[in-house]
Amino acid sequence: MPDSTRIDEVLSTLDAELPRALERLKDFLRIPSISTDPAHRADVRRAAEWLCAELAGLGFDASVRDTPGHPMVVAHSAQGDRRPLLFYGHYDVQPVDPLDLWDRPPFEPEIEDTPQGRVIRGRGAADDKGQLMTFVEALRAWKAVHGALPSDLVLLFEGEEESGSPSLQPFLRENAEELRAGIAMICDTGMYSDGRPAITTQLRGLLGEEIVVRAADRDLHSGSFGGLAANPIQVLVDALATVKGDQGRITLPGFYDGVEDLTDELRTDWAALGFDAEAFLAQVGLRRPVGESGRTGLEMVWNRPTFEINGITGGYTGEGFKTVLPAEARAKVSFRLTGTQDPAAIREAFRAHVRAAIPEDCRVEFHGHGASPASRMDIADPAFAAAKQALSQEWGREAAYIGAGGSIPIAGDFKQILGMDSMLIGFGRDDDRIHSPNEKYDLDSFAKGARSWARILAALT
Amino acid sequence: MPDSTRIDEVLSTLDAELPRALERLKDFLRIPSISTDPAHRADVRRAAEWLCAELAGLGFDASVRDTPGHPMVVAHSAQGDRRPLLFYGHYDVQPVDPLDLWDRPPFEPEIEDTPQGRVIRGRGAADDKGQLMTFVEALRAWKAVHGALPSDLVLLFEGEEESGSPSLQPFLRENAEELRAGIAMICDTGMYSDGRPAITTQLRGLLGEEIVVRAADRDLHSGSFGGLAANPIQVLVDALATVKGDQGRITLPGFYDGVEDLTDELRTDWAALGFDAEAFLAQVGLRRPVGESGRTGLEMVWNRPTFEINGITGGYTGEGFKTVLPAEARAKVSFRLTGTQDPAAIREAFRAHVRAAIPEDCRVEFHGHGASPASRMDIADPAFAAAKQALSQEWGREAAYIGAGGSIPIAGDFKQILGMDSMLIGFGRDDDRIHSPNEKYDLDSFAKGARSWARILAALT
Repeated sequence: MPDSTRIDEVLSTLDAELPRALERLKDFLRIPSISTDPAHRADVRRAAEWLCAELAGLGFDASVRDTPGHPMVVAHSAQGDRRPLLFYGHYDVQPVDPLDLWDRPPFEPEIEDTPQGRVIRGRGAADDKGQLMTFVEALRAWKAVHGALPSDLVLLFEGEEESGSPSLQPFLRENAEELRAGIAMICDTGMYSDGRPAITTQLRGLLGEEIVVRAADRDLHSGSFGGLAANPIQVLVDALATVKGDQGRITLPGFYDGVEDLTDELRTDWAALGFDAEAFLAQVGLRRPVGESGRTGLEMVWNRPTFEINGITGGYTGEGFKTVLPAEARAKVSFRLTGTQDPAAIREAFRAHVRAAIPEDCRVEFHGHGASPASRMDIADPAFAAAKQALSQEWGREAAYIGAGGSIPIAGDFKQILGMDSMLIGFGRDDDRIHSPNEKYDLDSFAKGARSWARILAALT
Repeated sequence: MPDSTRIDEVLSTLDAELPRALERLKDFLRIPSISTDPAHRADVRRAAEWLCAELAGLGFDASVRDTPGHPMVVAHSAQGDRRPLLFYGHYDVQPVDPLDLWDRPPFEPEIEDTPQGRVIRGRGAADDKGQLMTFVEALRAWKAVHGALPSDLVLLFEGEEESGSPSLQPFLRENAEELRAGIAMICDTGMYSDGRPAITTQLRGLLGEEIVVRAADRDLHSGSFGGLAANPIQVLVDALATVKGDQGRITLPGFYDGVEDLTDELRTDWAALGFDAEAFLAQVGLRRPVGESGRTGLEMVWNRPTFEINGITGGYTGEGFKTVLPAEARAKVSFRLTGTQDPAAIREAFRAHVRAAIPEDCRVEFHGHGASPASRMDIADPAFAAAKQALSQEWGREAAYIGAGGSIPIAGDFKQILGMDSMLIGFGRDDDRIHSPNEKYDLDSFAKGARSWARILAALT
């Protein structure tokens, strides 16, 4: 039977094109599109424009679309009669501090040979520019072979994923007719830890909060005021120390409402993955899982909620010592959410907890940094089975349905606003150091990732 | 009876010289001698050399004396047959951060008219360059009138007071014969809060500690590791939150050993000062005293020990948000000590407390930042009564014996190493903002401070 998708030709085109594809990725990675830092606002726009030009060059009807924050890039292929597919990625990246821990400048990407294989190193290589480009390169090869792009594709690339996606929901609402598809494909996740290809079918939600505690109207000398004046660092520390209680349980009232235990089916599947929490932690110099007792390692990272202090600062933190009682102290904290936990209710419970810990002489200010519930996909959609088979063929081993501890709120937004499920497919590895210094993406992930998308496109055509 | 000290002439000379004295002080304040910051090492030496040149110009046998840290300035007047007096001050200053809270550059001092009177504003104006110069200017006027300095004076100026005085004890030991005097005069304290002249007769001790908690060997993404990996900020917060318990009591075993209640005499004297803790706090925007219950305000700041977190940092603290589990977190903490509390024993108790709170997967590192016990002077020495009378004459109101919440470890060092008591006399005000942005010194403190020293010198001659 002739292959109307000409998949073999598409795959060999991808293989031949790889060196040029890597040069294009390096161009993209050189743009420091750090969305959370206002100083990089123009760089974020430059990345959007670079991407838009790439897509227009492939024949897409592509445009940079302004939002109150960073722009979206939207691209359409010709309209046909197939079930429309939406592809999502993000072109913004995380901050790069601490800069002195990078072995090379984060925005001067290079190919490196490592004992684990060849990688491309630089901020955004894995999260998410490299992943996003696997899909773009698959389409480029498809067009080269077929002379045209697949019809009924919508591409949506965001520039605020690393800073809470403030413009995303309004944009989806305002452009719902244009963006609605049969299913979304989101490329911002990883393979399973042993390199097995995977489709992520559940994601934890995320709630971010920033707390500022203020006391005196100036920094005080602890010799003059120590013992009488409230110390905002101590107040903040006391408030944060009591969010967690015994055995890592979070003490906020109602916090566990909506947290669900695993289905038997997923419990069995996940057990088969043979996850070794100690070995997982050993990768980063740790040995002993923390968190609630009585849960498996995969449950802890995929199916249980957490509270984390992500940043704290107050008083004198330079060289030497200063006996200061500072005027203020700050912390950034986040909760990972599972099941149907309600981010708004938990935000209020957290704020009430902190307010109750603040003495009369202190004031507290809160800043919300995004709130998204957890997501679970309906894997009965036949597209899941088709994609799973395509992935298994490309990688030569059975693809897995897995969970993810990270938050990709857009999956929930697609469901809620556009009424469509998402297939979360990506080729990241656990050692990619995303959000950390020395981020990298394996060339294997990049090359076989692009081949995987070609196969999935063929399977869904 | 003719006044052999010609005090009236010395005082009128001081008054006439004031404008030039202020220009000299401004020159001194322009040198950013921040001893805790290695970047300012050369500036600290420059301040020592400036001061040495001033003293040599007055006829002192003055020298800059090297130490393993910042240098000492030592100056001698001619040897005579009087009871030798040692005068101590420090020429180093505190860091200036946060710089954006200063209304003018901290090292470009100027005279300002304020609703409370004229002040000289700049880092070190009150702590301690302005105070130190009151003594130098008194000597300059004395010499102008008498044609010679008083005999048997030793001046000792330190450059490490704001960074734990690491070189001081060795220097005192190595130069004990040269520096030993009948009594020391230390000019690094303030008037009582209502502007009453005062001699400080007891000082709290100080113990500084820096804690570094490390977990993973890199920053982690909280989506991938949150729930499994130890978070060093949380570990640090938990350890610090439990140093204090109910009613502000410090929980370290043995912590209160050596803490003494006030003598009846001092309790009566202090009560007569009419200290109003609420009004004191209102100066800095606060209202409610914290700390142990059942103690008066003056006891809390002068006669009770404290624990304070002076600085904390970890994770992402920039603009926006970053879901990081950091590799490390740091804090700087200090204890104020009273009575005969043993700094070494308390350091060990604190470290044991922190170690016990550190989970298996974390490591903790401690850095000591100075340790000095509290000091109490023997006010039976007649020099105290003489100085008290001289101060009362200059300021037109009865001088007081007071305590101080701050630590001036040198008073203890003088006692222990050189066997001499200290008179702690200074002219700072509670609103001088020492250690804070916009530090200032009242011109009244400067002018009448110099006149006070002239009277004290006359009284002790």
